[in-house]
Amino acid sequence: MNVDVEISEQPLPLQPLTISGCGAIARFDGIVRGLEDGKEIAGLCYEAYAPMAEKVIRDILAELSVEHPCERVRVSHRIGFVPVGEAAMMMDVHSIHRGEAFALMQKFMDRLKQEVPIWKRGSR
Amino acid sequence: MNVDVEISEQPLPLQPLTISGCGAIARFDGIVRGLEDGKEIAGLCYEAYAPMAEKVIRDILAELSVEHPCERVRVSHRIGFVPVGEAAMMMDVHSIHRGEAFALMQKFMDRLKQEVPIWKRGSR
Repeated sequence: MNVDVEISEQPLPLQPLTISGCGAIARFDGIVRGLEDGKEIAGLCYEAYAPMAEKVIRDILAELSVEHPCERVRVSHRIGFVPVGEAAMMMDVHSIHRGEAFALMQKFMDRLKQEVPIWKRGSR
Repeated sequence: MNVDVEISEQPLPLQPLTISGCGAIARFDGIVRGLEDGKEIAGLCYEAYAPMAEKVIRDILAELSVEHPCERVRVSHRIGFVPVGEAAMMMDVHSIHRGEAFALMQKFMDRLKQEVPIWKRGSR
């Protein structure tokens, strides 16, 4: 495992936009890997029934936020051809304390592939 | 809870750099909040015994990576005065699958405040 550690007086680079009162921002990027079922690929093709996918994502987040109240969640999922090394999806979560953001993000990711009508259509 | 959802063919903005073979990047930013013990503040002052802090951070990560193998971890902690709304610390974790990155990040954050010689020196 490669580890970088930095202790510094400088502002940290690449900060996401923050929301007043939030002490935690958690983010996840799901990246297309170079191997699919053991064979090398150039990328994956995603297909979605987009209006339904968006509705299901919003419903899952509304449900999860009852137990894990967060201030803001952003979810983006790419469709069409996504080359290896690029993000197929990303989400970030703003919350007052970190526990809620971590919990919501993990539970959302577990449900995304099960319940949301976005499919891997194949690879090339 | 404010929710944004996007389904798009465009590349996702603000992607972090990726490492070949990794399917997951998890990130956490710890932001200074405007309230400390119920009173409004302009920011927090952090102090560290920097060489020891770096060593302890590396030791914790090495320990955690036995159970949760990840490819790369970056940890940055700011010291000195950090204004409200700016990040006091950030970490990101690259791993092959998301489970390891989430687990390592959460366990690291739980230990950071307990074990690493970085202190809130006061607020103003």
